[in-house]
Amino acid sequence: MQALPSKRAARIFEQIENNKDIRRKPDAIIIANGSSVIDTSFFYLTGFQAGLFENSFLLAKRHDGISLFTSPLEESIARSDSKGIEVFAFREASGNQQKLKERAGKNVKTIGMNFSELSLSTFNLIKALFKGVRIVDIGGAVANARAIKDQDELDAIQRACSIASKIYKSVPELLKDGVTEGQIAAEMAYRMQLGGGSGVSFPSIVAFGNNSALPHYMAGEARLKKDQFVLLDYGTKYRRYCSDITRTLVYGRASKGQRKMYEIVKEALRVGTEMCTIDHSGADVHSEVAGLIDSTEYKGRFIHSTGHSLGLEVHDGPALSLAVKSKLQPGMVVTVEPGIYVPSLGGVRIEDDILITKDKPKVLTSATRELIEA
Amino acid sequence: MQALPSKRAARIFEQIENNKDIRRKPDAIIIANGSSVIDTSFFYLTGFQAGLFENSFLLAKRHDGISLFTSPLEESIARSDSKGIEVFAFREASGNQQKLKERAGKNVKTIGMNFSELSLSTFNLIKALFKGVRIVDIGGAVANARAIKDQDELDAIQRACSIASKIYKSVPELLKDGVTEGQIAAEMAYRMQLGGGSGVSFPSIVAFGNNSALPHYMAGEARLKKDQFVLLDYGTKYRRYCSDITRTLVYGRASKGQRKMYEIVKEALRVGTEMCTIDHSGADVHSEVAGLIDSTEYKGRFIHSTGHSLGLEVHDGPALSLAVKSKLQPGMVVTVEPGIYVPSLGGVRIEDDILITKDKPKVLTSATRELIEA
Repeated sequence: MQALPSKRAARIFEQIENNKDIRRKPDAIIIANGSSVIDTSFFYLTGFQAGLFENSFLLAKRHDGISLFTSPLEESIARSDSKGIEVFAFREASGNQQKLKERAGKNVKTIGMNFSELSLSTFNLIKALFKGVRIVDIGGAVANARAIKDQDELDAIQRACSIASKIYKSVPELLKDGVTEGQIAAEMAYRMQLGGGSGVSFPSIVAFGNNSALPHYMAGEARLKKDQFVLLDYGTKYRRYCSDITRTLVYGRASKGQRKMYEIVKEALRVGTEMCTIDHSGADVHSEVAGLIDSTEYKGRFIHSTGHSLGLEVHDGPALSLAVKSKLQPGMVVTVEPGIYVPSLGGVRIEDDILITKDKPKVLTSATRELIEA
Repeated sequence: MQALPSKRAARIFEQIENNKDIRRKPDAIIIANGSSVIDTSFFYLTGFQAGLFENSFLLAKRHDGISLFTSPLEESIARSDSKGIEVFAFREASGNQQKLKERAGKNVKTIGMNFSELSLSTFNLIKALFKGVRIVDIGGAVANARAIKDQDELDAIQRACSIASKIYKSVPELLKDGVTEGQIAAEMAYRMQLGGGSGVSFPSIVAFGNNSALPHYMAGEARLKKDQFVLLDYGTKYRRYCSDITRTLVYGRASKGQRKMYEIVKEALRVGTEMCTIDHSGADVHSEVAGLIDSTEYKGRFIHSTGHSLGLEVHDGPALSLAVKSKLQPGMVVTVEPGIYVPSLGGVRIEDDILITKDKPKVLTSATRELIEA
């Protein structure tokens, strides 16, 4: 059986072959981390669980092995978990660079790099190292390879979704007069980590009252009052893979207006989820969901796209937005997250993580979608 | 009084003026976020507490105002906290791009960008938008501006350090036979967040026994046994600023060997900290610390540099390594973190966060440096 890194490199090369935008097919690909800018594809290819791997390079040659160039700081982690990767670890950056050049070989004509997760500084460094070699963008191919999850990835995402879903049950008991958004965020993160997660997949959004109308709010110091919306958008990592779930509840009794907003969003979620099949494009799903909300009195109050791809990053590429005209494919994992935002009243968003299959969509997040009055 | 964004933009322009590597001085700087690659300098300039600001741009013209181009998703956050920044928010990326071009003006000849936190895709987008305009790297100037902290930044870092230091007291009571590294990581993250932190500044390293010999290990499923080393490398964010502290203790009774390793590292920390003055370069500090460890039986067992700069990122630029020949300056915050790693025995690292002042170094992390046998 082929080891994970070789399998995944083969998948990227396959995407490169099929990608018409990549006219010159590379003989080798280099995934290069800077110090601030780390390419998540590094962990897609290696499957390494631990380590930072700043300023490290991966070289994958077509029909050939994979080599890693890193620092002594990461060497033991890399060697203990190398899965067939050849490991070099020089203390000096120049040592790794020279070895990278040597391993790429004199015959390399074209190198592929992932321009969307590559810093310009690191690109310039590689360009100077490989004078006369053409460097082409394989970002599209990498994104496509990563968009279709393999079983290892699905197992990790399912686990991340289960951990996040499970702790939603304990939220009502956390809600009390005067509790802060930050305290709720702390309790949720703690429960997810004790449940097996390795840390939040992004800073949780815990938004009380009108703060819930800000889609990218974070947890602040607001204190909870009766009858406010409580919007929770959160997730955990598990083996570096992310979950991302949103639930909105009411602390106290929901007003008629709150319930009406909620029920529309819930219906939009249901419709959006059902649309997540291989017969539809991301644009189709988004149009349907946005159309539903825009047919109500909340026209214009859904101000973002319906969902995004999920994987090693929370926003792992676009998925359910007007710009995506291609059909969904089996193995994709996307979020469906309709919302209604009214600055003077607050907002409702409900979000599930969905696996696209050959048949029906599979919902990976299991927390209840019924309105809870806590 | 000048608002924070203008003050910080002025600081970057001042660094640009003084930087001999930047020969063509830009008329304007653009800080550009992609979707995966976010330039932390965006938050340095704006001071925004909330929001993601993916695919957003900042334009700062010399001797002129600052403009933000973002999406409706972030608009309310930006407007409520804008501190004199002009805010544009178009749903379509092209809207922001056109407005950015318009606000830069026809007379712009040279634009500065931060190449080390800029993705190649985003750079190519800006390059296409500003045809014929020269784009120069201001990464060095941005790093230098960010290296010298102002009072707002120091307040945030001090708070992050205090939160992290305080919870170390509760660690001994958490240590029990069979507890996992992951459980300890969860408890520590929880206590920091309840203490006012907004989430860990990086995935905590909790390493039992031999795992402590891997400098970039993370928390795993190992279970604690008597007389093992427990190495904890962790920190919290507060207002987006990071703390980063390491302590090593022994669960049970320290062997003679463990104590010897510990005392050498502790002495190296003391010496390294004392060296953190404006009379010394990063290379001076590192040489002294490495020299001390290499003069013992643990020669060659200190395999990383002595410290790094700390700020909006945990690794916010180099600081105490052989490559840094310039003198330390007042307002810099660096880590001092000597370690000894012996694969068959485990490792010891002790790390403090240090503010460089005109006089003596100020230690911002206060957890005890004495060896605890818990």
